[in-house]
Amino acid sequence: MIRFLTAGESHGPRLTAILEGMPAGIPVESEYINHQLVRRQEGYGSGGRMNIERDEAQVTSGVAAGFTTGSPIAMTVENRDYKNWRERDITPMTTPRPGHADLTGAIKYGYSDLRIALERASARETTMRVAVGAICRRFLEEFGVKIGGYVTQIGAEIATLSTDLSLEDRIIQAEVSDVRCPDEESTERMHEAIRQAKIAKDTLGGVMEIVAIGVPPGLGSHVHYDRRLDARIVGAMVSVHAMKGAEIGPAFENAGKPGSQVHDVIALHDDGQIIRTTNRAGGIEGGITTGEPIIARVAMKPISTLMRGIGSVNLASGAEESTVYERSDFCAVPRAVPILEAMLAFVLADALIEKLGGDSISEMRPRFENLRRANLADLMMDNVEWRFGYPV
Amino acid sequence: MIRFLTAGESHGPRLTAILEGMPAGIPVESEYINHQLVRRQEGYGSGGRMNIERDEAQVTSGVAAGFTTGSPIAMTVENRDYKNWRERDITPMTTPRPGHADLTGAIKYGYSDLRIALERASARETTMRVAVGAICRRFLEEFGVKIGGYVTQIGAEIATLSTDLSLEDRIIQAEVSDVRCPDEESTERMHEAIRQAKIAKDTLGGVMEIVAIGVPPGLGSHVHYDRRLDARIVGAMVSVHAMKGAEIGPAFENAGKPGSQVHDVIALHDDGQIIRTTNRAGGIEGGITTGEPIIARVAMKPISTLMRGIGSVNLASGAEESTVYERSDFCAVPRAVPILEAMLAFVLADALIEKLGGDSISEMRPRFENLRRANLADLMMDNVEWRFGYPV
Amino acid sequence: MIRFLTAGESHGPRLTAILEGMPAGIPVESEYINHQLVRRQEGYGSGGRMNIERDEAQVTSGVAAGFTTGSPIAMTVENRDYKNWRERDITPMTTPRPGHADLTGAIKYGYSDLRIALERASARETTMRVAVGAICRRFLEEFGVKIGGYVTQIGAEIATLSTDLSLEDRIIQAEVSDVRCPDEESTERMHEAIRQAKIAKDTLGGVMEIVAIGVPPGLGSHVHYDRRLDARIVGAMVSVHAMKGAEIGPAFENAGKPGSQVHDVIALHDDGQIIRTTNRAGGIEGGITTGEPIIARVAMKPISTLMRGIGSVNLASGAEESTVYERSDFCAVPRAVPILEAMLAFVLADALIEKLGGDSISEMRPRFENLRRANLADLMMDNVEWRFGYPV
Amino acid sequence: MIRFLTAGESHGPRLTAILEGMPAGIPVESEYINHQLVRRQEGYGSGGRMNIERDEAQVTSGVAAGFTTGSPIAMTVENRDYKNWRERDITPMTTPRPGHADLTGAIKYGYSDLRIALERASARETTMRVAVGAICRRFLEEFGVKIGGYVTQIGAEIATLSTDLSLEDRIIQAEVSDVRCPDEESTERMHEAIRQAKIAKDTLGGVMEIVAIGVPPGLGSHVHYDRRLDARIVGAMVSVHAMKGAEIGPAFENAGKPGSQVHDVIALHDDGQIIRTTNRAGGIEGGITTGEPIIARVAMKPISTLMRGIGSVNLASGAEESTVYERSDFCAVPRAVPILEAMLAFVLADALIEKLGGDSISEMRPRFENLRRANLADLMMDNVEWRFGYPV
Repeated sequence: MIRFLTAGESHGPRLTAILEGMPAGIPVESEYINHQLVRRQEGYGSGGRMNIERDEAQVTSGVAAGFTTGSPIAMTVENRDYKNWRERDITPMTTPRPGHADLTGAIKYGYSDLRIALERASARETTMRVAVGAICRRFLEEFGVKIGGYVTQIGAEIATLSTDLSLEDRIIQAEVSDVRCPDEESTERMHEAIRQAKIAKDTLGGVMEIVAIGVPPGLGSHVHYDRRLDARIVGAMVSVHAMKGAEIGPAFENAGKPGSQVHDVIALHDDGQIIRTTNRAGGIEGGITTGEPIIARVAMKPISTLMRGIGSVNLASGAEESTVYERSDFCAVPRAVPILEAMLAFVLADALIEKLGGDSISEMRPRFENLRRANLADLMMDNVEWRFGYPV
Repeated sequence: MIRFLTAGESHGPRLTAILEGMPAGIPVESEYINHQLVRRQEGYGSGGRMNIERDEAQVTSGVAAGFTTGSPIAMTVENRDYKNWRERDITPMTTPRPGHADLTGAIKYGYSDLRIALERASARETTMRVAVGAICRRFLEEFGVKIGGYVTQIGAEIATLSTDLSLEDRIIQAEVSDVRCPDEESTERMHEAIRQAKIAKDTLGGVMEIVAIGVPPGLGSHVHYDRRLDARIVGAMVSVHAMKGAEIGPAFENAGKPGSQVHDVIALHDDGQIIRTTNRAGGIEGGITTGEPIIARVAMKPISTLMRGIGSVNLASGAEESTVYERSDFCAVPRAVPILEAMLAFVLADALIEKLGGDSISEMRPRFENLRRANLADLMMDNVEWRFGYPV
Repeated sequence: MIRFLTAGESHGPRLTAILEGMPAGIPVESEYINHQLVRRQEGYGSGGRMNIERDEAQVTSGVAAGFTTGSPIAMTVENRDYKNWRERDITPMTTPRPGHADLTGAIKYGYSDLRIALERASARETTMRVAVGAICRRFLEEFGVKIGGYVTQIGAEIATLSTDLSLEDRIIQAEVSDVRCPDEESTERMHEAIRQAKIAKDTLGGVMEIVAIGVPPGLGSHVHYDRRLDARIVGAMVSVHAMKGAEIGPAFENAGKPGSQVHDVIALHDDGQIIRTTNRAGGIEGGITTGEPIIARVAMKPISTLMRGIGSVNLASGAEESTVYERSDFCAVPRAVPILEAMLAFVLADALIEKLGGDSISEMRPRFENLRRANLADLMMDNVEWRFGYPV
Repeated sequence: MIRFLTAGESHGPRLTAILEGMPAGIPVESEYINHQLVRRQEGYGSGGRMNIERDEAQVTSGVAAGFTTGSPIAMTVENRDYKNWRERDITPMTTPRPGHADLTGAIKYGYSDLRIALERASARETTMRVAVGAICRRFLEEFGVKIGGYVTQIGAEIATLSTDLSLEDRIIQAEVSDVRCPDEESTERMHEAIRQAKIAKDTLGGVMEIVAIGVPPGLGSHVHYDRRLDARIVGAMVSVHAMKGAEIGPAFENAGKPGSQVHDVIALHDDGQIIRTTNRAGGIEGGITTGEPIIARVAMKPISTLMRGIGSVNLASGAEESTVYERSDFCAVPRAVPILEAMLAFVLADALIEKLGGDSISEMRPRFENLRRANLADLMMDNVEWRFGYPV
């Protein structure tokens, strides 16, 4: 079992995370973590905050001489904006923004200033998820598992992605697009959509695909509801701010098709490998990985803070009035990709540790090599050891 | 915290569940639980199994004189088909069905007969989730919370639902449709689609909407990723067999719209109640309930067992061959609704117990009455008690 | 992670347990489980109930053809006494027994009949812990780990145990003592003490030692408070009814000695094995197993139900009056040993699964063989791979 | 549910903790936390480290304007000694100390320098437990619950404590004793015992009593093994470094007495309060608080680092040799008291939040006032609402 806690407010002094349960021996470099943090800060459609912050993670425990030790890993990121806010006179916020935790947070915790809700509800928190996810991602890489993601829709603009384009290439090409879309022409359309939203003082959401390549079969389980890997993944995806839906593979599309067009034929390759010619299941069957790439599709709603304002009620005066704008993004979809990747990395690291057990990379490596795989040699059932029988 | 475990195989003697952590004083009648079990057994498109079984839950602990005692609640449902299977000579199953846990389960656990995987992976397990959910549902009713659901799509047939039709009416009308769709004309179309699928020896999936009405605001939280109620709900939805995607409100549709058309205006009603004129957020903002109905939309894939067979590999012979048909449903979408309702009831009962604390209904009731609500009187911020400040 | 839930009342129809997370391939025979149940029913000092019950576990899931499948294991034990109670007219119980959950349970859950508390608070519940523990014990045996226990004190009578008597022999000899004490003369003294307590209409507690032999080093961890194996073990011991204290090794005695007489010298055996000449640490250092036997010492209070009565208050009349006697044991110490063994087996199975990972015995076995052990060959540090450095 | 993670090494830059799940509205002042940290640093028998460190907690999130917000609370304490260690040339450590995690940690995680184990296994980690516990303690104070503790034994010296001395007075007087013992003459004896241990280059352990006064009845539960409060408390006590045993009340002593001398008579006070004339149960019956003070007795082993050395094996040379001394305490018992208090505060805060539910102090306060108490008015059973019956 691995677990993490994050702490920190959007304009507090510092964000903190502790990741507990990672094995010893994972190489950890600051540059690696910071690269992921930078990815989270980039993308067309961001507001002004990202010009102020230049996120760098400081690792203050759990790592010695460049490798994890098995002890809890504490990481922090300073909020540069904190200094500005300390010196400014912050006006109370009393008009809740629809779509944000302003109102629901105040109802729940009894706040008399909505800022207390929004300071924690802000997506600034996801900085630490990316830092946590970077360690998990680095762990997965030790076993050849790669995590990536890209944008397939922003507002009404849907990417035109050639089915010839491999997942690996999608991931690579998305990195050079300022809306993180692996297609050039689609990138231009999405870019323009965001520009128009800015002009309209409005905001845009979108859809992303988050993938894991090289995952061994056998992670997760069908035996109990909370062990199913698909459930754990969609839960993790929707735990990210503004994410309201998630699916494994094109689930809503598949729901409209007959079974014969949905399920992935099992075939035998020349080399004895049991393969699938399609991956419409998104890499998971019965709550367990198949060995095919995991593909999670995630729907993000538009940012709740609109420059044009939305109808609301001022809780100080009791009068209906429009929300007041404060600095925000216009479209955060491109920046959300690395956050979702981090959450996928966390879930998969947890599932892989479950499968491998052990406390260090060197203990885990031979176990990984010996995992049963989807090949005929491992699975031949001519030599039945114990047959099905009923409980007694 | 409440929790449950289920156990039992599809053709084993008995299914079992233990639900732990429920407060004392919830009225529990067998009829109530059995009604939910019956709902799970009905629906056009079912295979032959449901003619054999007539599920009745036996409660063997945790209930005294018709009320829960606070002790763990054990429930069982007998498998009538067990007797038949004991007497039959069961042939080993060595050709895995694409889409099921046959292959992945065997890889994971090292089975030499695929039946061991499928016996537990079978949706027969959901019987006990419905029984567990029935207790949770009864608990929620004590506080005026109602759970329901209906089908909006089967295969390519999408229901035409009038926006005038209230959620309450949708729930009621779905109960008289044999595909659990609240519209008569749509029911017919769906019915016909299933009939055609049968003829084609194929299967169909679909989409359902699962709703909770009367949920107080303030359940769930934005403060930590695993406290967000939307994440917990979509995770619970996808934990059900064959569910591959879930969203809160029409999330994938909203991802294509500008923020001004997505967020739900906050307005003041004459009676001082803070209301929303729309509920596009599906009842949750910032991971916390708003007080509006919770609406989860769930995508179910077509059943994996096709009468026409799908390409696979026989793991005994090593030859590619088509899957062998065994009794199964053609379309399980109508029957899935009560299962998803049960899981929603479980998540909400857990969240409500978190909010109310306490160990009996009589202890919880006054607490519920005194919850802060979305009305101006509760939320007026003119009398600020403690202002926002930065951590020190 | 493994977990279990138990359910059932003392005079309800049936006790139930579900054990979830056990790997596939553990041999499970009814006789094995029932043998443990019988051990729990025997012992001088028992009351009349054990003449009525003849506990037999029924396994209704998670086992096929004599081996676990990896699916949840449901077990039940019928209460024969249930029939008697259904037919009898049970008088309400309104005078709480000091020492029992009668009063505290009623305060907590709002009961108006104390029986509701005591029905679940009764040690009858431990039947299912023994059943759960039997599976865990059988799992541990696959890896050569043995669990046992014996009584060292009943009332004021302390066993005189030769230090020459090995733990293995203590366990064996305790099985033939009707007070489960490995010394014959001590057995007689304890027997007599119980006889005198009966005559005095009083009850007796005592002290037990619960041991695990053959545990590999490296289970548990020092890195986080809730991973420490000693904490997990003493928590599990005290979770058993009437257990009020627990220690690893003779902790309270060691607290009075200087460090030079407490810590176990590390020495090198001829065969390269790193050994301890003593085991005053009880098999755990820094929250991690050393490879020496684990020894937990547990203090049990006297049974709360006294034939002579104890001062109390009748909650129906409001008058002070003595408790009313109902059938109970005079001394349950001998019968408690298998229950504590079961809890130790559960904790160790959980810790071993953490260390080994994997989903079946055949996957785990080679991992177990390759575990690092306390021998010089495994631990030589001349070839330092990565040196200590500070976090960055 | 509340939870916390700690991170940090003994000579790393900084210790960190995150405490998650605390309600909003708890007053938090740095002085309050730091006072607890200072208590942990004081006590006769400490080594040199405490002259270097002057622990001060920095709270970097979860607190606004002096009150908790309901968001996760991050706290850090700097290690002043870190600077010294950065500049020094640290020699590898290859001779494990018996009693410490040096050897077991290296076996588990595969370390090639024992320092990696000891850096995390060091009791320096408990600094953050004290910080976490300070928030929990402050929360409990809002409801009139007080936590304290004192030393009753150091080495062979057992305190002579008058039974007339109330728990409150014991706590107060312990604060002015440099061995944290509430008796002056005993303090002198203990002081001398430590002085002699220093001269003998040896170390001493001891016994402490940790108490909670003002705890309402009804916390914890008998219904499931892991809800029993006594189990949770002894587990938490033994999770602290060097603690090897714990009991609720004088459990090992009670194990030697007949029931009539152990159980606490229930009596009726003039004011209608149901009282106990003794508290031999240590405040817990059936895993549930009685309302009497909770008393946990904890056994601490002597420090593992002996100036005189202990026999061990040098893992670099493979030769048997004595351990090498590095700065350490001679007796840490007085300093352990606030750490154990912190863990008790954490467990009780968790149990109280379970009972009260809710998200802010203002929401919880009226619930606390309305808790059922141990008085006749609350508990009278003449008006039976629902009678005992058997499950159906």
